[in-house]
Amino acid sequence: MQRYVAVVGSGSCSPQEALAAEQIGSLLARADAVVVCGGLSGVMEAACRGARREGGLTVGILPGSDRSAANPHVVVAIATGLGELRNGLVVRAADAVVAVGGEFGTLSEIGFALKLGRRVIGLATWELSQKPDSILRASSAEEAVRLALEG
Amino acid sequence: MQRYVAVVGSGSCSPQEALAAEQIGSLLARADAVVVCGGLSGVMEAACRGARREGGLTVGILPGSDRSAANPHVVVAIATGLGELRNGLVVRAADAVVAVGGEFGTLSEIGFALKLGRRVIGLATWELSQKPDSILRASSAEEAVRLALEG
Amino acid sequence: MQRYVAVVGSGSCSPQEALAAEQIGSLLARADAVVVCGGLSGVMEAACRGARREGGLTVGILPGSDRSAANPHVVVAIATGLGELRNGLVVRAADAVVAVGGEFGTLSEIGFALKLGRRVIGLATWELSQKPDSILRASSAEEAVRLALEG
Amino acid sequence: MQRYVAVVGSGSCSPQEALAAEQIGSLLARADAVVVCGGLSGVMEAACRGARREGGLTVGILPGSDRSAANPHVVVAIATGLGELRNGLVVRAADAVVAVGGEFGTLSEIGFALKLGRRVIGLATWELSQKPDSILRASSAEEAVRLALEG
Repeated sequence: MQRYVAVVGSGSCSPQEALAAEQIGSLLARADAVVVCGGLSGVMEAACRGARREGGLTVGILPGSDRSAANPHVVVAIATGLGELRNGLVVRAADAVVAVGGEFGTLSEIGFALKLGRRVIGLATWELSQKPDSILRASSAEEAVRLALEG
Repeated sequence: MQRYVAVVGSGSCSPQEALAAEQIGSLLARADAVVVCGGLSGVMEAACRGARREGGLTVGILPGSDRSAANPHVVVAIATGLGELRNGLVVRAADAVVAVGGEFGTLSEIGFALKLGRRVIGLATWELSQKPDSILRASSAEEAVRLALEG
Repeated sequence: MQRYVAVVGSGSCSPQEALAAEQIGSLLARADAVVVCGGLSGVMEAACRGARREGGLTVGILPGSDRSAANPHVVVAIATGLGELRNGLVVRAADAVVAVGGEFGTLSEIGFALKLGRRVIGLATWELSQKPDSILRASSAEEAVRLALEG
Repeated sequence: MQRYVAVVGSGSCSPQEALAAEQIGSLLARADAVVVCGGLSGVMEAACRGARREGGLTVGILPGSDRSAANPHVVVAIATGLGELRNGLVVRAADAVVAVGGEFGTLSEIGFALKLGRRVIGLATWELSQKPDSILRASSAEEAVRLALEG
């Protein structure tokens, strides 16, 4: 079965985060994994752009009701109308979650993923000092993808 | 923008319904529309099979948490874990809804689609005697697809 | 265990529908049942008003994110932000569903309730000519409540 | 308008956490706030027990489809069938969120609440070292409730 990997992070991210997300998307696509994300800009768009460059499949699970809000690199856009509750669907749809940087929405996705027993890989993302080992730390896009696909 | 059309109907359908759903899937794929469905068997599977025969894109929005429940013709499977509430997402994700036959789940999708202002096309599906014109009646797969894409 | 009964119908209803919904709410409250509804106006408000007159408990499961949209007779307002998808939650939260008149949203609730195996009682609501016995028909508020509590 | 405050934390908590949650529930009820929670055991049950002792109103938004899973101190139980996605509804339904201790589910609720702009108060809960001020830290049940109601 094909792997589904969520790439999560802020809708407005730093150039370094965008670069990392793009590389992650590319590497996932090369490994024939489906890239799942929240469908918007920032880390989500960068991951989709990278995956599409390699001809990969990208899924954007959108908060609103309008599919046209998806970034241009989303192949399948699901307009949910659930608002931020769609974060839970992004995680649920994936076998593993790679968090790149990220704000509060990303934190909700990390918590939700860990609760559901999903493998969570972090690249310069939230530190969970009380359970430091719950997020698998990656120091590069390559390592993040390797950890995501290992599970 | 690419059209998204939901094909809804029972998970265990008659051979005629399966044939119609398969034709609808094929015709939608030829028109470059994405086929959205609940991802399971019966009408859903037939529509996906038809779409895939033409190389189309199929999306299955599943009630459970396990992607492997999707029929083999689903390209993108979204495991929602929402149970039957996922019916609302199937409708929301689509621009138009084609109902082929159908049981109570289909009725919920028709009601929801009409509430959201989606175009609803029916092929031997529920009659709404109080608002007979709310469902556009088709007498063939061709007519159903034509009506779905007209909107 | 206390019974939860959903009263569903249009947000803008006729005076007769409002009267019926109000009586249904009162009778449910007298029977110590919790009245669940979509929390807005019309049939929902009338049912809550009736229930509150008897000191009953009313729950409004709202489509939006703002609790203040609830009608003034809702005791517990749940702002879901799910839009019309909250219809599924109204039904899921209840043991039985009483439909009074109603538009497309009500149709979605009837379909969803029947799919989930909930008892559905109808008072001048949608006719399902293909499965005429699936909705238990009541000709008065009293009969509707009796049928709702019998199950 | 009545305040709705979510009390979130683990379904299996320490005696100290239970004691704190119970006091928080009591103090919220005395302040006429509605206690919203996930409806199950541990912190959720303790908060409801405390609120009920003062005659308060408690709402349990359950993950499953069976209302009987609610702890005995829940006045209004909403069976959602959404699984852990119901965490988002718990937060959305509330004006402020008090986190007592907590595991990954609590982390998802904190992230979601901060994303939605809800006031989050923490009592011995997750540390967010990157944004240490995003959670208002309380050192007692009294302080937690004061901070929750201040907003």
